[in-house]
Amino acid sequence: MHFADDLMVRTREIGHPLCAGIDPHLARIPPLFQRGSMAPTDPATPAAVEALALAFLDRLVGRVAVVKPQVAFFEQMGSAGLAVLERVMAAARERELLVLLDAKRGDIGSTAEGYARAYLEPGAAGEVDAITLNPYMGLDTLAPFAERAAAYGRGLFVLAKTSNPGSGDLQDRLLEKAGPVYEAVASSLTELADELTGPATGWSSLGIVAGATYPEQAERLRALLPNALFLIPGYGAQGASAAEAVRSFVAGPRGLEGGLVNSSRGLLFPEAAASAESAGAWEGAVDAAIDRASEELGLAVGR
Amino acid sequence: MHFADDLMVRTREIGHPLCAGIDPHLARIPPLFQRGSMAPTDPATPAAVEALALAFLDRLVGRVAVVKPQVAFFEQMGSAGLAVLERVMAAARERELLVLLDAKRGDIGSTAEGYARAYLEPGAAGEVDAITLNPYMGLDTLAPFAERAAAYGRGLFVLAKTSNPGSGDLQDRLLEKAGPVYEAVASSLTELADELTGPATGWSSLGIVAGATYPEQAERLRALLPNALFLIPGYGAQGASAAEAVRSFVAGPRGLEGGLVNSSRGLLFPEAAASAESAGAWEGAVDAAIDRASEELGLAVGR
Repeated sequence: MHFADDLMVRTREIGHPLCAGIDPHLARIPPLFQRGSMAPTDPATPAAVEALALAFLDRLVGRVAVVKPQVAFFEQMGSAGLAVLERVMAAARERELLVLLDAKRGDIGSTAEGYARAYLEPGAAGEVDAITLNPYMGLDTLAPFAERAAAYGRGLFVLAKTSNPGSGDLQDRLLEKAGPVYEAVASSLTELADELTGPATGWSSLGIVAGATYPEQAERLRALLPNALFLIPGYGAQGASAAEAVRSFVAGPRGLEGGLVNSSRGLLFPEAAASAESAGAWEGAVDAAIDRASEELGLAVGR
Repeated sequence: MHFADDLMVRTREIGHPLCAGIDPHLARIPPLFQRGSMAPTDPATPAAVEALALAFLDRLVGRVAVVKPQVAFFEQMGSAGLAVLERVMAAARERELLVLLDAKRGDIGSTAEGYARAYLEPGAAGEVDAITLNPYMGLDTLAPFAERAAAYGRGLFVLAKTSNPGSGDLQDRLLEKAGPVYEAVASSLTELADELTGPATGWSSLGIVAGATYPEQAERLRALLPNALFLIPGYGAQGASAAEAVRSFVAGPRGLEGGLVNSSRGLLFPEAAASAESAGAWEGAVDAAIDRASEELGLAVGR
């Protein structure tokens, strides 16, 4: 297995680069799935989140190549929440969905080793196919993840230009040499991107996060990392269009390609699903949201 | 409760700024505490880690003001590991030790909200007194943590200049205006530091991480943030001396003060404890390591 090859082959088959975020905001969980008070400390809450996440997975099978659970929404319920995350991720992998864990971990040495073991080691309770990483502490942050990416064919996505308004506070600051900080981060990754290049598609399992809300910056990042996968947040609920989301994509054998466009709230919590009174109504609302995003992105990549 | 006030009052009483890291490296756990294979996926491993961590807490009571568990060493065992962390942190707080969680979380919006709930909300399973945060995504990363710091008197430590060799990759890069990246991070925190200033001691619950391995940089950071607590890794096992560790400290009512000097491996895994064959021998070895570090730091702050 090689993450980038596997992902790109599946993406070409499926016809769009949509990545389904699994961000179970407690305040948005439809009445249909609610249990207890829905406070993060209520012992009934984890089961509600698990039921919603599993039902969501069923909607996604065959429709997307990859899901992206956000750890924080599970971690807010403590160890019981992390146990739910483990079961949801195992269920996704059983359903042959790739799992990209949005953990944004960033630490060093033996600590980074601990996080790498937690998520990239075969047989770990939290085993996933790919993970997001924060580069602030430097390149030694990446070492234990990069080792496992090479050994087990995992994927890595390093934060470069994130989609939030505050991303400019540090990432846009200009360096005395070499442009803005986010470009320096990208430039420092070229070697690792080469090492993790997939034999089948030429795409690298070393990716970066590049927000759809900053399409011009994404183009510049593409020039620096021509074969890195881009994980692209900011499409849909955060305001970026499908065309903006795929600005960093390049011509592939079956339309434009270059990574993943994530949608979380837009898929898991479409307006019509909030008041669904039956499982069928909820499924219909979620299916419609998935189909709409898939079509938009399929059009944007020229399928 | 106000974290900085509480910490500084306790530190003055105790006579040194030593913070005890709880980093239970599985490969270093003494035979006395081992169970099963000690692999992270072995179901017996979490109990071994818990036994060691609880025994360590008993050595620390009355000797240090604060402990710093590193989440990664627990998270590598999955949700079972996080459950151990929750129990260890609750035990620390019962023993009236302050708990500073080394989580280095850094995300935005509702995700950051999730992490803030997980650790800073009263009654959360993972409730702690303070937490470490990664600023790469920008100042909006800090908002939900800052709110809770103000509401519940929690402490925050933002990564500025970390102690690892790779910290220069990004943090030392010079910005076109305003010096290196780590100084820009520090400068952006002045307002929040003012807001979180403690009425009793004048110290702020907004702190930064400033590695003991870079004492000159720590001095410059002190100039930018005169009343921020500094969390100082790199003392002991990582090679910095006590004098280097307290370089950013300033005169206080009872010697130099200015934050916390962390030691993890040096206290939890002193050489003499590795081969301890009885609980008494292990306790003696750990006590000696704690006493040595306390004395060195007490001398360095002029007590």
